[in-house]
Amino acid sequence: MSTDISTKFIVEEAKESRIHEVDFDTLLFGKEFTDHMFECDFIDGKWQTPTIRPYQPILVDPSLKVFHYGQAVFEGMKAYKDDAGQVWMFRPDQNQIRINKSAKRLAMPEFPKDWFFEALNRLLVLDDAWIRKGKGNVVYIRPFIIATEPAIMAAPSTQYKFMIILSPVKSYFRGDVSVVFAEHYSRSADGGVGAAKAAGNYAGQFYPTNLAKEMGYQQVIWTDSNEHKYLEEAGTMNAFFRINDVLITAPTSDRILDGVTRKTVIDVARREGIPVEVRKITVAEVVAAAKEGSLKEIFGAGTAVVISPVKSFSYQGVDYPINKPEKSYADLFKELITDIQYNIVEDPFGWRYKVSADNY
Amino acid sequence: MSTDISTKFIVEEAKESRIHEVDFDTLLFGKEFTDHMFECDFIDGKWQTPTIRPYQPILVDPSLKVFHYGQAVFEGMKAYKDDAGQVWMFRPDQNQIRINKSAKRLAMPEFPKDWFFEALNRLLVLDDAWIRKGKGNVVYIRPFIIATEPAIMAAPSTQYKFMIILSPVKSYFRGDVSVVFAEHYSRSADGGVGAAKAAGNYAGQFYPTNLAKEMGYQQVIWTDSNEHKYLEEAGTMNAFFRINDVLITAPTSDRILDGVTRKTVIDVARREGIPVEVRKITVAEVVAAAKEGSLKEIFGAGTAVVISPVKSFSYQGVDYPINKPEKSYADLFKELITDIQYNIVEDPFGWRYKVSADNY
Repeated sequence: MSTDISTKFIVEEAKESRIHEVDFDTLLFGKEFTDHMFECDFIDGKWQTPTIRPYQPILVDPSLKVFHYGQAVFEGMKAYKDDAGQVWMFRPDQNQIRINKSAKRLAMPEFPKDWFFEALNRLLVLDDAWIRKGKGNVVYIRPFIIATEPAIMAAPSTQYKFMIILSPVKSYFRGDVSVVFAEHYSRSADGGVGAAKAAGNYAGQFYPTNLAKEMGYQQVIWTDSNEHKYLEEAGTMNAFFRINDVLITAPTSDRILDGVTRKTVIDVARREGIPVEVRKITVAEVVAAAKEGSLKEIFGAGTAVVISPVKSFSYQGVDYPINKPEKSYADLFKELITDIQYNIVEDPFGWRYKVSADNY
Repeated sequence: MSTDISTKFIVEEAKESRIHEVDFDTLLFGKEFTDHMFECDFIDGKWQTPTIRPYQPILVDPSLKVFHYGQAVFEGMKAYKDDAGQVWMFRPDQNQIRINKSAKRLAMPEFPKDWFFEALNRLLVLDDAWIRKGKGNVVYIRPFIIATEPAIMAAPSTQYKFMIILSPVKSYFRGDVSVVFAEHYSRSADGGVGAAKAAGNYAGQFYPTNLAKEMGYQQVIWTDSNEHKYLEEAGTMNAFFRINDVLITAPTSDRILDGVTRKTVIDVARREGIPVEVRKITVAEVVAAAKEGSLKEIFGAGTAVVISPVKSFSYQGVDYPINKPEKSYADLFKELITDIQYNIVEDPFGWRYKVSADNY
C-alpha cells in the first residue's frame, strides 16, 4: 500500500499561456497564478500519480473534510531569476522538511521529498516566462496539503490532495509598520499547533488584527497566551528586537514557527559579527528599552516580505516610537539576504538552489 | 451594499431522489447526504440570492482562502421525526446565534437569521423522506461558512459561501469510552478561538487523539494549556463529572465551547433536583475522588452523540476505572433529552422547533 516513488509524473501542458493577460506592473499579492499547477492525491493509503496540468479550478464535495475540520498545511517559498536568466530557490530543503512536520502535527501523511523537488523544478521550468529578472520580481510558490475525504465525521481524513500553485508578485515596499503588543488575544497555546504552518493558525488572527487596524496599527506582535509577558511572533513573520547593538529573538517552541527567514537572519547576523541572543524576551524589557532609548529596532522576518521594519509599537494604550538608526540592521539584512537570493553576491552558506530540468 | 433580506429563495428541485441508493441500516456517520443542499454566497459586501439545489460538488479555485488560512466555521444540529411524521429540530436558535458568534471571531460576515431558518425549513421539508421515524433515526444538519476568495494573501477573505448539507445517520450506540486527561497537548489558548466552532480547532486535536488511540483510549479530555490543571472539554463534547451526587462542569470561556447539549444537561439536571456546580474542576480533585470512590460518573455531552459515558480515565500513566452506578445520570439525561427531541414527552422548556412549510 505504500507510495511507489518511482512513478513517472504526468505532465499536461497548457495549450496557450495566459501570461499576456497579466499586467506585471500592477500585480496584487497572490491574486494571479501561472499557467500550471501540480497536484497529487493521497487515496487508499498512498500518494497517487504526481500530475502537472494547466491551472484550473477543482471540483470538490461540500462535505470535503478541510471545509469542516481545517486539516490543511502549507508552505511559502519563492523563485528568483538572476540577470543571466537562471532561476533559483532559497533553502527549499527547509520548506520540504517543515511541510512534513506540519502535516504530522495535523495527522496528515507526509509527502515524498523527491516528488516535492521534482514538482517544483518541473513547474518552474514550465512557467519560466512568469519569473522576471532581477530584484523586485519574484514568483511566490505555495505548496499545500488539504484533507479531501467527503465525510463530516470529526476524525482525520482518509484522503488528501497535495498541490503547488505559483503566483507572480512584485516584492513590494510596504513601508515601516506600527504594531500592537497583544494583551488579550492569542495566536497559539502550549501543546497546540502554533509551530505548524496550519491553516487554522491564520484565521484566528484576523479578528484581533482587524481590531488593531481599526485603531490605526497594521500588525499584532503576539505574546504568550498564559501571561502576555513574553514577545513571541508576528503571525506571518518572526519578530526581532535590537537593544543597543544586540539582536534578540524568541526561541522556537510549540507556539512559535521555525521560520526560514528567521534562521537566515540569525546566521547572517552572526557572520556580520552582530551579537545575537536567542532567548525569551519580555514586554517589560522592550518597554524599558524604548523608554531609555536603547531600543533601536524591531522588525519582522518572513518569506513574503523578507524584512518588515516596525516604526512604533503600542502597549497598554501608550505608543512608543522607534527611531531607526542610520546603520539599520533591518536594511542590512534585507540587502544581504535578497542579494544572495538573486545571485548577486557569493553564497557562503550554500543556500541557493539552482532550478533546472537536469533535476528531473 | 447591505444584504436585501427580502430576496426570494431560488429552489431547484432534484429530478430524481437518490434515496433508494442508500441503505439506512448500514449508515456511517456523515458519509451520505440527502437530495438537496443550501448555498448562499457573500460577494461585494453582501449575501447574494439564497439557493437550494440538488446536492452536488462545487467548483473552486486552488487558491480558495479556506484551503490556506482556515477561515471556516460550522454548526451541528439534528432533525427528528415523531411517530405522527412531524419533523422537529432542537433549540436551533442556539445554533443560529452561535454560528454568527463563531463567524465574528474569525472575521467572517454573519448570516441573516431569517434566511438561516427559511433554509433549514425548506431543506427539511424537501428532504422529508430522508428523515425516518423514531429514536435511532435522525438527519444530522451541517450549516457551515467557508472563505471563498481566490487569493493567497494572509488577510480575511472578501468572499464567503454559507451552506447547509444534511446527512441521514443512525444514532449509534458507541459503548462507554476510555479517556486520557491531556498532560502535554492542548486544544486552545486563552484569547484564542476555542470558544468558536472553528474548523482549525478540530484538526489540531487529531494527532494527540491518535496518540491516545494507539495506547488504547478513545478520547482526550483537554485541560487548560497553561498548567494542565483544570479539566475543560472533550473536543467534540463538553465534559461532566459526577462526584457523589453532585454534577460538575467547567464554566464556558475563551477556551471552552458553549455547547447546546451542555446547557440542556444543566437545565434538565436542575429540574430533576440534581445539584449542579458550574465551576473550574481540577484534575487533582477528580483523581482524589476516583481514589476514594466518590467519582461516580464522567460523561461527554454534544449534539452528535447526545451523552457519551466514560468508563475509565488515564492520568500520569495510571488508569482509573469508573463504576457507573445503577441510577446513572448519563442514562437519565440521554433518555430525558432524546424523549423531548423525538416529541415523546412534554417539552416544559420550549426547546422543540416544529419544522413546517408554514415557516416560509
